[in-house]
Amino acid sequence: MIYLDNSATTKPYKEVLETYLTVSEQYFGNPSSLHTLGLEAEKVLTRSRELIAKLLGVKAKEVIFTSGGTEGNNLAIKGVSLEHQSRGKHIITSVIEHASTYETFAELENKGFDVTYLPVNQTGHVSLDDLKQAIRSDTILVSLIHVNNETGAVQPIQEIGEFLKDYPKVFFHVDHVQGVTKVPVHFKKNNIDLCTISGHKFHGLKGTGALYVREGITLSPMLHGGVQEARLRAGTENVPGIAALAKALRMTIEKAEEGKLNLMQLQQKAIAGLKEINGIVLNSGSGDGHAPHIVNFSIPGAKPEVVIQALSHQQIYVSTKSACSSKLSSPSRILLEMGLGQKRAESAIRISFSYETQDQEVEAFIQVMKKEVPKLLQVMR
Amino acid sequence: MIYLDNSATTKPYKEVLETYLTVSEQYFGNPSSLHTLGLEAEKVLTRSRELIAKLLGVKAKEVIFTSGGTEGNNLAIKGVSLEHQSRGKHIITSVIEHASTYETFAELENKGFDVTYLPVNQTGHVSLDDLKQAIRSDTILVSLIHVNNETGAVQPIQEIGEFLKDYPKVFFHVDHVQGVTKVPVHFKKNNIDLCTISGHKFHGLKGTGALYVREGITLSPMLHGGVQEARLRAGTENVPGIAALAKALRMTIEKAEEGKLNLMQLQQKAIAGLKEINGIVLNSGSGDGHAPHIVNFSIPGAKPEVVIQALSHQQIYVSTKSACSSKLSSPSRILLEMGLGQKRAESAIRISFSYETQDQEVEAFIQVMKKEVPKLLQVMR
Ligand SMILES: Cc1ncc(COP(=O)(O)O)c(C=O)c1O
Ligand SMILES: Cc1ncc(COP(=O)(O)O)c(C=O)c1O
Repeated sequence: MIYLDNSATTKPYKEVLETYLTVSEQYFGNPSSLHTLGLEAEKVLTRSRELIAKLLGVKAKEVIFTSGGTEGNNLAIKGVSLEHQSRGKHIITSVIEHASTYETFAELENKGFDVTYLPVNQTGHVSLDDLKQAIRSDTILVSLIHVNNETGAVQPIQEIGEFLKDYPKVFFHVDHVQGVTKVPVHFKKNNIDLCTISGHKFHGLKGTGALYVREGITLSPMLHGGVQEARLRAGTENVPGIAALAKALRMTIEKAEEGKLNLMQLQQKAIAGLKEINGIVLNSGSGDGHAPHIVNFSIPGAKPEVVIQALSHQQIYVSTKSACSSKLSSPSRILLEMGLGQKRAESAIRISFSYETQDQEVEAFIQVMKKEVPKLLQVMR
Repeated sequence: MIYLDNSATTKPYKEVLETYLTVSEQYFGNPSSLHTLGLEAEKVLTRSRELIAKLLGVKAKEVIFTSGGTEGNNLAIKGVSLEHQSRGKHIITSVIEHASTYETFAELENKGFDVTYLPVNQTGHVSLDDLKQAIRSDTILVSLIHVNNETGAVQPIQEIGEFLKDYPKVFFHVDHVQGVTKVPVHFKKNNIDLCTISGHKFHGLKGTGALYVREGITLSPMLHGGVQEARLRAGTENVPGIAALAKALRMTIEKAEEGKLNLMQLQQKAIAGLKEINGIVLNSGSGDGHAPHIVNFSIPGAKPEVVIQALSHQQIYVSTKSACSSKLSSPSRILLEMGLGQKRAESAIRISFSYETQDQEVEAFIQVMKKEVPKLLQVMR
């Protein structure tokens, strides 16, 4: 099996599952319970929060556990917008956000918020200049994806964070779901107020995630009820999932030290190999401005479902677009916004690596593509 | 260890954890992915949904997976209220709801909804008559807890469902979190439109749950983004957790066949034993109108924390109030609403069983109480 769909989800690490199992069996108490079992579960929760905070360079009380990236983005964006709307109803995002941001902004637009969607250039990047022009006295939020999940384009978070220092009343949220462990950002130095991560994207478990909320920021919660998570997220805490999240983050960050260079080499290899194949156009780049784990390309005229099927038969797993919209057979919204045209947007394929991806796997993928693409293009003629 | 805090959370069944593990390792694909691994994960999701639907006597497409009971209650109540507010802004609940319902209604009240909180009698039951008086032409929702988590009082869901048949425009939501697998309700016959369950209350996993949404009902979603869960709940599905939910529900319902009688006997034994101890007043009953797995009593004058500590030292785990508000050292809102007075509301202890609780455990608990209560009362003098 050659799994090249790590941006959709990753295989949980064995050690992560072991942590989950141990905590589920030995610390199954409700952390809100006052007895020993409750206190022990609470300790696991606290230690996990502290570890994650340390790994992200933030304070423990700034980490709010969620059920994943979608909830993190929804909570950050609605939380800020609804809570601080008396100060202004203008909010800013980009045209290349993940659906969990994009649809949330659309919902707020329906509710009377004024939204600016920053455009992107052909490489899929927003510009600071466009943000400068968009920002107004009634702007309360800028929310940007860090690493785009389809193209790997890395947005200029540092530059934008720097610029926003002059706008202390504008909250800055970053969707770091694809970035974390692969393209680190400095939450504090880059002036980030809120930041979303999701466990299953770095060999953690589905249904786990965290939202960084800078100390002092008030949010309107989405889940009302108990006093868990500083009242920002009610509900019995998923203690085993949270411990697993901490473990996965630690392990993946440790692997990153050595693995980063390898990822970049895999990307180079994939890009070089794909470039040699007739009929393939690359939609993403490498080096600065691009995450090392994503390569996006099109086979204009070929249906991505057919390509995915053909590879799937050979136990090679790749994807088209974002997983959560892949079943809608529409062109990629992201590639269209990059101005790459309907044909490329309709035929895009994404491969995505993790620190577990092997050189031979990319090699094998390229060899199979060299055989399959001409066949696919022949069928279409 | 004698664990008598099963209403706070239960220990996951070994088999449930095995299911979780197998699915995490072998079906780790994103169910939205188009390749074989995605399709296989989707199959697990579909089969789990079908099994849960069958066990609950509803259709597969009526089951929406959530991150737990708090999310289910929030989604049902806000979902209906926000979506259907043009028809009316009057919503009804009771004074003895779980915080996840209570606080959600409070939030909607802040947003301009008109809320009627039905009172309860001394046994903790709402009356159909009060509901009849409360209902109006602009009422759009009645949301009631089925089995109260502190007292085990079972609300007259059947009677109320019957009555609401004459009000086809009023949605009926039931918080079935404490009831499911112990006090079954018939969703369809009882005219229930929405119903919340949570996995960790029946030996499933934390962070898992489901909301039944009757076919044809539209809800305003809380999590925007992908097209998962019929667009009612965006986010990558927690496939292993969902498979574990199905497993836990099936196993627990199977155990209920034999276990029900046992639970009732445990309850009788606990009540009889506690009655013999000077200084203890019972706050809950048994038989019709009471769930078999909860016993609530007070030791007026004693601090519940102290009682819990004393028992905890002997590895007996009990609780006070609802877990998610147990760290607030306020009296029980539920017992106050039942008119049991400040003293009893301040000193309440809850024990709660599961189908795994053994006769000897309850016996041992009673014996320890017989020794400890006189000591506790002496200290207070
Ligand atoms: C950039 C980005 N943001 C948010 C999400 C949503 O995360 P989750 O699947 O954990 O809800 C994803 C992945 O689905 C993503 O790639
Ligand atoms: C009656 C009732 N409703 C809702 C909930 C909330 O469920 P969860 O802990 O899964 O969020 C609980 C338990 O905490 C409960 O007892």
